Amino acid sequence: TQGLGAIGKHPVLCLREASVGPVFGIKGGAAGGGYAQVVPMEDLNLHFTGDLHAIGAANNLLAALLESHLLHGNALGIDPLSISWRRCVDMNDRALRQIVVGLGGRANGYVRETGFDITAASEVMAIVAVARDLFDLRRRLGAITVGHSFAGDPITAEALNAAGAMTVLLKDALKPNLVQTLEGQPALVHCGPFANIAHGNNSLVADLVALKLGDYVVTESGFGSDMGMEKFLNIVCRAGGLSPSAVVLVATVRALEHHGDEPDGGLAAIERGAANLRRHLEIVHGFGLKAVVAVNRFPGDTDEEVELVRRLALDDGAHAAELNEGFERGGQGAAALAEAVVDATRDAPSFDHTYPIDAPIEEKIRAIATRVYGADDIFLLKTAREKIDTFAAAGLDRLPICMAKTHLSLSHDAALTNAPEGFTVTVRDIRAYTGAGWLVALCGDMQTMPGLAERPAAFTVDIDEDGRTVGLF
Amino acid sequence: TQGLGAIGKHPVLCLREASVGPVFGIKGGAAGGGYAQVVPMEDLNLHFTGDLHAIGAANNLLAALLESHLLHGNALGIDPLSISWRRCVDMNDRALRQIVVGLGGRANGYVRETGFDITAASEVMAIVAVARDLFDLRRRLGAITVGHSFAGDPITAEALNAAGAMTVLLKDALKPNLVQTLEGQPALVHCGPFANIAHGNNSLVADLVALKLGDYVVTESGFGSDMGMEKFLNIVCRAGGLSPSAVVLVATVRALEHHGDEPDGGLAAIERGAANLRRHLEIVHGFGLKAVVAVNRFPGDTDEEVELVRRLALDDGAHAAELNEGFERGGQGAAALAEAVVDATRDAPSFDHTYPIDAPIEEKIRAIATRVYGADDIFLLKTAREKIDTFAAAGLDRLPICMAKTHLSLSHDAALTNAPEGFTVTVRDIRAYTGAGWLVALCGDMQTMPGLAERPAAFTVDIDEDGRTVGLF
Amino acid sequence: TQGLGAIGKHPVLCLREASVGPVFGIKGGAAGGGYAQVVPMEDLNLHFTGDLHAIGAANNLLAALLESHLLHGNALGIDPLSISWRRCVDMNDRALRQIVVGLGGRANGYVRETGFDITAASEVMAIVAVARDLFDLRRRLGAITVGHSFAGDPITAEALNAAGAMTVLLKDALKPNLVQTLEGQPALVHCGPFANIAHGNNSLVADLVALKLGDYVVTESGFGSDMGMEKFLNIVCRAGGLSPSAVVLVATVRALEHHGDEPDGGLAAIERGAANLRRHLEIVHGFGLKAVVAVNRFPGDTDEEVELVRRLALDDGAHAAELNEGFERGGQGAAALAEAVVDATRDAPSFDHTYPIDAPIEEKIRAIATRVYGADDIFLLKTAREKIDTFAAAGLDRLPICMAKTHLSLSHDAALTNAPEGFTVTVRDIRAYTGAGWLVALCGDMQTMPGLAERPAAFTVDIDEDGRTVGLF
Amino acid sequence: TQGLGAIGKHPVLCLREASVGPVFGIKGGAAGGGYAQVVPMEDLNLHFTGDLHAIGAANNLLAALLESHLLHGNALGIDPLSISWRRCVDMNDRALRQIVVGLGGRANGYVRETGFDITAASEVMAIVAVARDLFDLRRRLGAITVGHSFAGDPITAEALNAAGAMTVLLKDALKPNLVQTLEGQPALVHCGPFANIAHGNNSLVADLVALKLGDYVVTESGFGSDMGMEKFLNIVCRAGGLSPSAVVLVATVRALEHHGDEPDGGLAAIERGAANLRRHLEIVHGFGLKAVVAVNRFPGDTDEEVELVRRLALDDGAHAAELNEGFERGGQGAAALAEAVVDATRDAPSFDHTYPIDAPIEEKIRAIATRVYGADDIFLLKTAREKIDTFAAAGLDRLPICMAKTHLSLSHDAALTNAPEGFTVTVRDIRAYTGAGWLVALCGDMQTMPGLAERPAAFTVDIDEDGRTVGLF
Repeated sequence: TQGLGAIGKHPVLCLREASVGPVFGIKGGAAGGGYAQVVPMEDLNLHFTGDLHAIGAANNLLAALLESHLLHGNALGIDPLSISWRRCVDMNDRALRQIVVGLGGRANGYVRETGFDITAASEVMAIVAVARDLFDLRRRLGAITVGHSFAGDPITAEALNAAGAMTVLLKDALKPNLVQTLEGQPALVHCGPFANIAHGNNSLVADLVALKLGDYVVTESGFGSDMGMEKFLNIVCRAGGLSPSAVVLVATVRALEHHGDEPDGGLAAIERGAANLRRHLEIVHGFGLKAVVAVNRFPGDTDEEVELVRRLALDDGAHAAELNEGFERGGQGAAALAEAVVDATRDAPSFDHTYPIDAPIEEKIRAIATRVYGADDIFLLKTAREKIDTFAAAGLDRLPICMAKTHLSLSHDAALTNAPEGFTVTVRDIRAYTGAGWLVALCGDMQTMPGLAERPAAFTVDIDEDGRTVGLF
Repeated sequence: TQGLGAIGKHPVLCLREASVGPVFGIKGGAAGGGYAQVVPMEDLNLHFTGDLHAIGAANNLLAALLESHLLHGNALGIDPLSISWRRCVDMNDRALRQIVVGLGGRANGYVRETGFDITAASEVMAIVAVARDLFDLRRRLGAITVGHSFAGDPITAEALNAAGAMTVLLKDALKPNLVQTLEGQPALVHCGPFANIAHGNNSLVADLVALKLGDYVVTESGFGSDMGMEKFLNIVCRAGGLSPSAVVLVATVRALEHHGDEPDGGLAAIERGAANLRRHLEIVHGFGLKAVVAVNRFPGDTDEEVELVRRLALDDGAHAAELNEGFERGGQGAAALAEAVVDATRDAPSFDHTYPIDAPIEEKIRAIATRVYGADDIFLLKTAREKIDTFAAAGLDRLPICMAKTHLSLSHDAALTNAPEGFTVTVRDIRAYTGAGWLVALCGDMQTMPGLAERPAAFTVDIDEDGRTVGLF
Repeated sequence: TQGLGAIGKHPVLCLREASVGPVFGIKGGAAGGGYAQVVPMEDLNLHFTGDLHAIGAANNLLAALLESHLLHGNALGIDPLSISWRRCVDMNDRALRQIVVGLGGRANGYVRETGFDITAASEVMAIVAVARDLFDLRRRLGAITVGHSFAGDPITAEALNAAGAMTVLLKDALKPNLVQTLEGQPALVHCGPFANIAHGNNSLVADLVALKLGDYVVTESGFGSDMGMEKFLNIVCRAGGLSPSAVVLVATVRALEHHGDEPDGGLAAIERGAANLRRHLEIVHGFGLKAVVAVNRFPGDTDEEVELVRRLALDDGAHAAELNEGFERGGQGAAALAEAVVDATRDAPSFDHTYPIDAPIEEKIRAIATRVYGADDIFLLKTAREKIDTFAAAGLDRLPICMAKTHLSLSHDAALTNAPEGFTVTVRDIRAYTGAGWLVALCGDMQTMPGLAERPAAFTVDIDEDGRTVGLF
Repeated sequence: TQGLGAIGKHPVLCLREASVGPVFGIKGGAAGGGYAQVVPMEDLNLHFTGDLHAIGAANNLLAALLESHLLHGNALGIDPLSISWRRCVDMNDRALRQIVVGLGGRANGYVRETGFDITAASEVMAIVAVARDLFDLRRRLGAITVGHSFAGDPITAEALNAAGAMTVLLKDALKPNLVQTLEGQPALVHCGPFANIAHGNNSLVADLVALKLGDYVVTESGFGSDMGMEKFLNIVCRAGGLSPSAVVLVATVRALEHHGDEPDGGLAAIERGAANLRRHLEIVHGFGLKAVVAVNRFPGDTDEEVELVRRLALDDGAHAAELNEGFERGGQGAAALAEAVVDATRDAPSFDHTYPIDAPIEEKIRAIATRVYGADDIFLLKTAREKIDTFAAAGLDRLPICMAKTHLSLSHDAALTNAPEGFTVTVRDIRAYTGAGWLVALCGDMQTMPGLAERPAAFTVDIDEDGRTVGLF
């Protein structure tokens, strides 16, 4: 974005909001770095404008109203065993993944097995991110399915009288938050669904606002082209009627060396790891889009290394491949990249989705797994298979699919790096986000609530003797 | 406060922040009403500046770090059965009072029985409310005891490397939030501990700032003189070295009729219910303070009724008793009351506490129960008795006591209205808030997490066709 | 019993069956010792004829049928929160006291909080012990209340179609088991309710059979006169229309020294500890019965010590007090005791109960606590008070009371030895045994499932190199 | 067996003991019927000699000692999350499959997630069934692995001091129980492992005793040749050094019609369903054994039908196929069958196992699935794969495999009747029975604790007006 500014364009950047969970978990804060930042970084990485807290509050109000309904006579005849609505919190707290609530007798309600997701994976987050306005938000919240009656009918948030209060809690959260880059380009930072366990893109409202305000809109999708980008193109573009002009793929020397399975790096490792880049380019091309590869240069990367990455990208069919030295040089360092992007957007692309929306659920999942991930096939565990039948019977088979899958591999198995082949994607469960408008397929062991590592980032965060925050980035 | 402004003074009002729990629970919003308000009311009643969410996040980060420590080798040798730290959320969610976490195998950690409190009852809330500055906050957070090692040593948040990150999460929450009354007097709205299950007063920082800025500081304490006021005088004044000038007791016709056990009201009911007012006056006098009774007039109260209340208050020893018609008339309607308050503060009071700080724990609890509540005695259940022994052995017996007691009665039993006598206060458990600096005595069935009623306030909250919030107040 | 045989009588002994729980728990086996035994001891202490296992199976079949009913449509509309029926196992397994069942999804049924009691405390055990015949057994099993419907109606085992199958499982268990003493007197060993947490007496069927067969029936009641004897006289005698002729109180030098609080013993300790014996004599006299004190002599007891015990017993009003040297000398060693017992039974006693059966529940509990235990008063915790109201409303207030109380003290507090005074008995909960026909009042912390100590008796039980059992007694 | 008696042989029959679970669950009692029975049937179907209760007690004593060890200092450093030992009860109680124990605070021990199996699936049952004598029993019980230490070492029952007491509880249960057929042939009824979730054969001790006593030993294996027989040949024969002479396969008209998918029956259905019989014959032949097909004739079967079954069996390679009319005619009705069996045993068979004992775990499972069940392949879920690695590292890979699989299909999917093809057997978990000496592979959704159906057999069991048991068979 700063690069587009540097070549005289008026871009608007659309970013996701940070979640406190990973900030204190595995990776520390996120809002760029060096001379390529949006500011104020400290606020962006902590509570910011409180949107995530508001989303958590709305999510949990629905849960509390549901429990209360069960206790106070259960007039709707909700079958407790059918309840799929979970609580959420913006924290990496694995102990909350699977819990029993309502212990201690009648005063505490009915005993049930349930759990918390991280807020970024909540359907309420998804709804705020795809709602077009306050009324659409209200309608989608009301359409959330929390479970079923003993008679088999879906129970919605509307039926529980929850949608109004949830909407009021989310009134401010629906508004995109405007910040700026270090060089003054506007950036809309709004909503924070993770790209592995959620749909991984900032809000549709932000995108639509940005399209009105700028000449170029750069919208960020989480993780690789198999994750956030796939979901942007198959889910968000469908929901919002969007059509992208081109795709920017970020590559780094370090990442290719990692995929080349050579911790000490070297050109040979990069060549081996380029298979991963090649696969991502194939994914982009599979959507009928052009890909510009941005080689993000880190201190220590040699000219030889970055040049090799560029060359390999071009060999593999990239429309262009340019260095991005924004970290060290700000917008000027990304000017060539920006020119390449502008060039790539000149011709209208022949954009196409991975699957037709009216394909059977199983076919849609198989299409993503085979055409995007490169899998041989999918394997549906019993719960997943039963859910497919249930959802199809309930007319929920015309929804797009949001895969919950590890971002550490193109496959569903975090241990398979580079460009794995010959694998089968295991799908263990499927959830229906009837308010957001898609089905979430849980692959492998992917959890919707992360855990903390043995030495989490929180250990190093503190105030110094002047009261300033240290250790956050 | 508006009354003090009307008579030419420069008061500063200190209020507590609203919790979303009760806003959507039993009572709807709170920030005054009619012409006696602080604004903006909608924001004040919802997320406001996000302080409560930040407190919840800090509380729950500590919980997540604790679970993570247990799972990753438990280097501190923490005995899971000794853990007293609970999670919190700003919601009335009874199902979370008593839960089992960590189900589902090793990936989800060790299985434990625990629960959530409402954020307003969290020790982190208490700490923010009594911390003097950022460094005091940091120190107090580190001094939180989450449990004990197998060897019997206390485990603190500091030992878990949690205090630094918690402080960073609370940096902004420590700052008082400045709003104003409808007539422009400054109001500091900061922290929201409930007065039944927590210590029930806004922050010490707000009080200290207000004392520097205004000529009169009006600080609000929750519920009756047995609740927030007792805790302000015995806990906050001790922690902050404060000495109040006078006490304003609020009385209403409706409340006395309620205590007079006559739903249809009438003068006889008021006379009977005045026993409750008399008891509150005795409590104030017991602290060596003067009491000004503010008779808050509601639409429909007759002159005869409000006059009777005034007269009964004076009969019972009030320094003064004046009508407060702020709701209908703004500051002018409270001018006489303001004059009375100014008058009451002329002489230095002979302020005294209910108990000496170095009395044994049991004696301190008994002193509050008998001298403030009017009980005959206390009855310690086994858990409470064991905790007293444990805390005394650990040198925690020199801390003040924060009673968690129903606000619906002067006793611990919500069913006993007016001025009950001959009752014994049951204490079932005691918690040590080593960071905040007091012990919490749980009386009767008092829960630290409220529940929702059958028809909670949330049912009526919604947006209208113009997108405006309705039903919140 | 062997003593009665030695003086030419034809007594029948009625004993309880051993529970595996305590056999492997704190105390090892029980069936007498030395020359005063019933045989075969090893079988008596292990599974014996399997009666306890059968009782456990019947108890747990009802539980399984109940869960199944809930899962398969819950046609009776049972409120899961109202269920009071618990499972049982003949094992000291504290971890099963409070559990959550039904985790893991629909295939495993509805999630509920419940627990296991030791089989000896099960209502099924109580029912087998008071049933008059197979048809009475069938009727009583059907009358068990497992919980209530949402409409508030009691749900019985009959309504669940469980009573027939339970009866079939218990057909053999209802029959008393005939063994013999070392000297050939018949002994009926049947049923094993504990005397602390259950009603503490062998079966009514055994008593009735013995009354037909022998000229004297010696029926054993567990623990002190405050425990098994009180329950025999107030519950079993009422249920069976029995009237006892006299009471034999067992005293030992060791026990009085223990109550005299002097582990090294000595005459002074015995004198102090005699207050405990005196209290037991008062209890017997309170029922209008004569007491014969049997001083069970152990190896090491001096003549002086046993004589002192005898003298103190007579001073305190015992009808007689004689040495019982059955352990070392068999029946001959108890001949004098037997003569004294025969003498005591010559006149018809003026037997009376502790409370009239139609007194209010609270009064009956108070009567036992004050008149038998010597308490000042009782303190009903909230749950107990609510149950009293519920049971009274359901017409269950005309049932006798079975106290679940520690046997280690005359009070409800195991730490108070000898003859405690000035204490208040805390009652925390009450259960209705509608099949057995009484209410169980849970006092203090008394648990209906014991735990294992750090070094339980099971550690020493094994087979030797010849395959013989060692360490059981 | 009665047939062998009828032709002048001296056979000994070895049967399994009945479990109360299924007796009151889906199918009612089992011990033959009509003129082919062992007696006394009522006792055989209820508690019998109490062996199953004793096994349950031993199993649960180990659990109680384990919990007690955790609570009292955990000197062995057992990691609670590693504990695999479960409790058991002889009841179909699905709610106990997955439970949380130890709730309610320290007095009740550490909170853990665990569950109950039906006693028939307990490793203790397996151990009693394969132990050669009391000392072997003692050694095997001590070798049970209950979990692992934090350091990763296995924790055995021996380390917990439990094996001695468990052995003493099982002393009588180790002895086979001698009953007789209606025609007087001896029958040893001993041990009752289910053939689907356990190893499905009566005890080795019974087999060895019978081999000494009779000229022919007929030992019963549960369900089809894919279930009990496979386990007898691959597990029991290995453990006991046995070599069978021939196999009797039972076929019925009704079963073949069921597999022919024609509820109304008919010759065409039998022909279709014969594919199932053919597969079983192939399985027997795969072990190098001869198969004699016994066509059990039921009332209503036409001559044409039974003759068709016979002919189809012979077409498919059965050594012989004869009618068994024992139900209607006693031993005489099975004389021809007996002759055929005697004939089949004349030549020594070339008996072989399905897999070499030192094949890798995965290969052994695959061999059973493909060579016995006819599957294409196996699919190991993550937990199963991890266990294989763990067990292999611990040297447990040289043990035979006991498959826990539905008996309703030759596959792992109960819905696939007749002779399914093209299926993949899903293995979700593996347990190590280090005392019994094999690994248990859990296939599909197979549960080690059955549930009760909506209308279980228990509903019809009762006593009649004369006190006789009705509805049990």
